[in-house]
Amino acid sequence: MMEIQCIDCQQTSSDPLAWRCEACGGVLDFSAYPPFDADAIDAHDFSLWRYRAWLPVEQHVSLGEGLTPLARVRISDDDLLLKLEYLNPTGSYKDRGTVTMMNHMASHGVTNVVEDSSGNAGASVAAYSTALGIHPRIYVPAHGSARKKALIEHVGGELMEIGGTQEAKTIAARQAAATIPYASHAYSPYFVLGQMTVAFEVWEQCQRTAPDVIVTPLGHGGLFLGFARGFALLHAAGYVERVPTMIAVQSDHSDPIVRAYETGTSDPAPISTGQTIADGIIVADPVRGRAVLEAIATTGGAAFRVSDAAIQSARATLARHGYVAEPTSATTLAALPQVRAHVGTSASVVLALTGNGLKYI
Amino acid sequence: MMEIQCIDCQQTSSDPLAWRCEACGGVLDFSAYPPFDADAIDAHDFSLWRYRAWLPVEQHVSLGEGLTPLARVRISDDDLLLKLEYLNPTGSYKDRGTVTMMNHMASHGVTNVVEDSSGNAGASVAAYSTALGIHPRIYVPAHGSARKKALIEHVGGELMEIGGTQEAKTIAARQAAATIPYASHAYSPYFVLGQMTVAFEVWEQCQRTAPDVIVTPLGHGGLFLGFARGFALLHAAGYVERVPTMIAVQSDHSDPIVRAYETGTSDPAPISTGQTIADGIIVADPVRGRAVLEAIATTGGAAFRVSDAAIQSARATLARHGYVAEPTSATTLAALPQVRAHVGTSASVVLALTGNGLKYI
Repeated sequence: MMEIQCIDCQQTSSDPLAWRCEACGGVLDFSAYPPFDADAIDAHDFSLWRYRAWLPVEQHVSLGEGLTPLARVRISDDDLLLKLEYLNPTGSYKDRGTVTMMNHMASHGVTNVVEDSSGNAGASVAAYSTALGIHPRIYVPAHGSARKKALIEHVGGELMEIGGTQEAKTIAARQAAATIPYASHAYSPYFVLGQMTVAFEVWEQCQRTAPDVIVTPLGHGGLFLGFARGFALLHAAGYVERVPTMIAVQSDHSDPIVRAYETGTSDPAPISTGQTIADGIIVADPVRGRAVLEAIATTGGAAFRVSDAAIQSARATLARHGYVAEPTSATTLAALPQVRAHVGTSASVVLALTGNGLKYI
Repeated sequence: MMEIQCIDCQQTSSDPLAWRCEACGGVLDFSAYPPFDADAIDAHDFSLWRYRAWLPVEQHVSLGEGLTPLARVRISDDDLLLKLEYLNPTGSYKDRGTVTMMNHMASHGVTNVVEDSSGNAGASVAAYSTALGIHPRIYVPAHGSARKKALIEHVGGELMEIGGTQEAKTIAARQAAATIPYASHAYSPYFVLGQMTVAFEVWEQCQRTAPDVIVTPLGHGGLFLGFARGFALLHAAGYVERVPTMIAVQSDHSDPIVRAYETGTSDPAPISTGQTIADGIIVADPVRGRAVLEAIATTGGAAFRVSDAAIQSARATLARHGYVAEPTSATTLAALPQVRAHVGTSASVVLALTGNGLKYI
């Protein structure tokens, strides 16, 4: 039985729209997922709904998300696989989780939502909300990028511009969430649910095998945990011999997971973040940090930090191989020397590219 | 035998890099394509290379192009299918033809190319060229969009900015093409070749049936002919009962095909174009206009023109359903009332959305 429960106090949640534990304020998550079974894949569906057997939502409104390309590239004599999550409909991996979160909310009669995001998540939630007839209010920092705001408005989002610090918009959204359902990419268990499909895809795209290593940028941990959980299901059902080594990459100006990994603590401490061009992963206190650290520990993984200079250089390298990625995405390639030092030169490595660089040109 | 021959004088081309007939200057095309056979699809490949059996090129370097989503949407009580060509790697349907054209050129030892385009084709040719180790010189109008130029440069294109009229860049590129291979999305038969895969995909995505109607924006006719030829192969092999009704949409400021369709002539006359927000299809003299008109005639199709106001409105409608398309793409939805008047309300209709709106936000 797939229940939603608190990861802190284990209490089962009875409110399908709860974004955190009603009892203790903890983070909610599914208690279990259906076992993987390759015969249950709908091979005639070329979106993430080919895995609908593992997605317990009652509606399946789609903008064409999922089944993103897995491209092969040789960079400086290193053969790599690139998972092009930026080719999702609104230009980021967020769509993979937004589609399950918003379909779930729509099936429960939701007509208004709030979300806080200055970037990819805001555009994603706005697009899927309007597609489902839900009015989205997106809280953004007043000083944020004009183009990202324009994209949110283009797809029907109502901008709620909040002055002050980066955190101010989150505080304002949470206040609004007292009366309006909170479509939070950071908190919703239905967001992480959809992210799981990325692992199933990579498995299919690798001729039904697991790559040795997965590398993702890390903010709150949605995509990272999607990979880890999807491959854990594949492993539990005997389809792969092991879960890939999971490696998280952060900016050296926003590195709570790296600090916890280096000190061997199981729960990241909140930090003070600084500015970085990897603006998609500026997160002081990752919502699912403990689960991320656990996945790193159990898979022999690691967490690495990279500088803006290395990110800039990696982004240019990607472009010279034909890939138009946003700076946050380029963190994975920027970390490649550290990754290779950790896993060796012969391991097969997938780098997740999370956001479309067309938003930055 | 797949030979390349002139559509005017029928002479077979012996130069694999020729962009037009050496004898008469006419347009080159393949004389025939391999018969379609569903068993020859590589179902384990989730890019357009699953159809490699129909793509006679010796290299298969890929950026993850093809197998774009076919999304279902209801707009004003009309159920439509949207082929999201804008989710190709560089943000447009062009990648589908560029990948076959550039792999062909690379396999013949090409190290430098020229191309003329101010927009999607320039970015696409630049990206695939650099990915293949080919140096691309892209001729653009000096007064063109700064963002499009920045994208071309980002992926390694050398910008050749030409003053004067829109045609001046084409003239300059052709002069350069006297000594440097011309990677022309308008002329290369290898470009149209790759476009054919879009039909195979739609057929697979419609559970191996053909939709009743295909609607595309029309510039030189690459995507339109890709659909028509792909479905003609499916029909010849008995996989579909008929080729879909093929409908071309142009701007009312650039409508040579519509004029020829309305007057019943088999070859479009060159026109004087005006400015339109559908900047991807400003073409005075479509290179494959005769073939386009023939496909319209043999499928009971049509050609319609739409105004900038209708395009603007259709683009906003797409956005309010979650789809971020460039203005040129929105021409197909803008033409929907004319399409429905022509094919009736019950026909299944695919609208091709060709360019990513993220380039315009």
